[in-house]
Amino acid sequence: MPQLPTLPNMSVPKTIEWISQSRKRLVPGRIRMIDQTLLPNKLVFLEIADVKKVWHAIKTLQVRGAPAIGIAAAMGVAVAVQNSKAKSGMQLAREVCKATDYLATSRPTAVNLFWALNRIKKLANANTRLSPAELKELIASTAVAIRDEDAAMCRAIGQYGLKFLKDGYTVLTHCNAGSLATAEYGTALAPIYTAIERGMKIRVYADETRPLLQGARLTAWELQQAGIEVTLICDNMAAHVMKQRHVNAVFVGADRIAANGDTANKIGTYGVALLAKAHKIPFYVFAPTSTFDLSLKKGSEIPIEERPAGEITKGFGKCIAPKGIKVYAPAFDITPAELITAIVCEKGIAKPDFSKSLPGYVQA
Amino acid sequence: MPQLPTLPNMSVPKTIEWISQSRKRLVPGRIRMIDQTLLPNKLVFLEIADVKKVWHAIKTLQVRGAPAIGIAAAMGVAVAVQNSKAKSGMQLAREVCKATDYLATSRPTAVNLFWALNRIKKLANANTRLSPAELKELIASTAVAIRDEDAAMCRAIGQYGLKFLKDGYTVLTHCNAGSLATAEYGTALAPIYTAIERGMKIRVYADETRPLLQGARLTAWELQQAGIEVTLICDNMAAHVMKQRHVNAVFVGADRIAANGDTANKIGTYGVALLAKAHKIPFYVFAPTSTFDLSLKKGSEIPIEERPAGEITKGFGKCIAPKGIKVYAPAFDITPAELITAIVCEKGIAKPDFSKSLPGYVQA
Repeated sequence: MPQLPTLPNMSVPKTIEWISQSRKRLVPGRIRMIDQTLLPNKLVFLEIADVKKVWHAIKTLQVRGAPAIGIAAAMGVAVAVQNSKAKSGMQLAREVCKATDYLATSRPTAVNLFWALNRIKKLANANTRLSPAELKELIASTAVAIRDEDAAMCRAIGQYGLKFLKDGYTVLTHCNAGSLATAEYGTALAPIYTAIERGMKIRVYADETRPLLQGARLTAWELQQAGIEVTLICDNMAAHVMKQRHVNAVFVGADRIAANGDTANKIGTYGVALLAKAHKIPFYVFAPTSTFDLSLKKGSEIPIEERPAGEITKGFGKCIAPKGIKVYAPAFDITPAELITAIVCEKGIAKPDFSKSLPGYVQA
Repeated sequence: MPQLPTLPNMSVPKTIEWISQSRKRLVPGRIRMIDQTLLPNKLVFLEIADVKKVWHAIKTLQVRGAPAIGIAAAMGVAVAVQNSKAKSGMQLAREVCKATDYLATSRPTAVNLFWALNRIKKLANANTRLSPAELKELIASTAVAIRDEDAAMCRAIGQYGLKFLKDGYTVLTHCNAGSLATAEYGTALAPIYTAIERGMKIRVYADETRPLLQGARLTAWELQQAGIEVTLICDNMAAHVMKQRHVNAVFVGADRIAANGDTANKIGTYGVALLAKAHKIPFYVFAPTSTFDLSLKKGSEIPIEERPAGEITKGFGKCIAPKGIKVYAPAFDITPAELITAIVCEKGIAKPDFSKSLPGYVQA
């Protein structure tokens, strides 16, 4: 690769943060997050200090993207217990368990949600000897740490992912696995931000990603904000673009990755992977290790969320289908490992056979 | 196949008709067509007696579907000249040429448009000895004949296509190649209507077909009207449906078919064909011979219409992408012959090698 100048860090939106009410202490505090349902027409920041509103924000996709959901959930537990009147650490830990159980019902597919909630729950159960005030502070600081670690993981994924980019490359991406899905640089978009920082020229095709249009609303918006050349297409144009134009690679994120490498991601990812294979285009998955679920042998064990029919038929301000029509609306699909060229995490690049390479990246 | 009862003919909408002002004569008259841009929310019939409005109806997809466009264009010429003050057949024929040249600029990809216009132009040029009144009547009667022939061709396609259906089959279709795309039974949907008439049970998955949602708005509507079980999916769900559920065949229409069998159809068709191949599902194209363009050796010679960006970004009543975003909006793609199991026309079933089988169905 030729030596290219290093540009300033890219400006990316602050998707989710913890705002403390005092300079010295993290609690009480509130979650500040972009309401992603209003993008790209309005950039509105929600400030939430109520666990029910956190659950609602995850459920209704005000915050979405597997890593960002994990951060929101961890912060959601901090919010849930920060005003608790618990008299002991033990009593507070029970409230933590209640909050984690509740937040776990918000969405089923992204494993980062459960990973973050389990981390907080374990932490609370291991620290019942602390005073309630100390434990509240510990939970909030861990939630903030999950956010900061995510930001660092995105940077690391970006560095490793650079290996798969060259100056002048065109990348096709599906859904949003960018800064809006994470704390900062995103997963699939992280190598692109990193490449642009290095002065490389990268073009992006963004699938609009029906039904909720995360590609059109979020990926197109954040890349445009960062000054990166992005062209919006409908999902069904990807095959034509791959054949007629020059696409060097497909970059996607993940919501859960099974032990054999089978990857759950936004509905349509599996189709894009098949199209990439048909056009001999490499297909890369980018995700932090918190997305790996080695307890599942293969993708068919990953639960697939179905969303309400109205997200398809009434998502745009007017009804686009006849009344009473039967709709099938899976939110995710499974891309089988054999269609994946490599899985890039914050610790390195896993290549097939994933059942052998993935465990090396997950701590015991 | 077991003996099944024959049910009454299916009730399908009257997509396009010629309405004469007197019982004895066809001219003056007007075109009556469903305004397909208002479906499925409103069923509105347009009555048009002005060639500019016909051009506009084709351009803006108030009438769409390759066969229906051909019918509209032929009737458009009848409308254009019916009030002419031409003093001779020769003079009227020149006006016919002007009208056909004008209508030919409405859309570039569907060859049926040019086929119908050429037929009318040739007819006029061959009958300049007639009086203007006689020639007007001849043109209108030919336009009506094109409609009636199309209805008959759809029935024949339905009969031949039955070969690829069995009781209990599930068919996936893309865009609308049904009654709304033709005079009556459609092309890709004709075998399904015919099978239902025979008492068979057929289920349909309808791709919504972005950007203009002909699957959600039109296919779902007309199948629902006919009482046929139809499930709406987003385009990017087709791969998941093929893998997880039982899809026996993919049925699509065509806008132009080259001599080697390469087929232009609604954007997304090529992707569906690749997905069908990956899942070992047969992929059938249904089209009248007027869709065959044997003057073109292969699909890369077919002009591909690009549509305005706003059809993607503003098609649903609210803007779904950031302002100023770059958009690529091809209206069609080319499915290469090697992905097509068979091409069914009104004269029979063409199988690969299409460069050998297709010419047999086209009259010299």
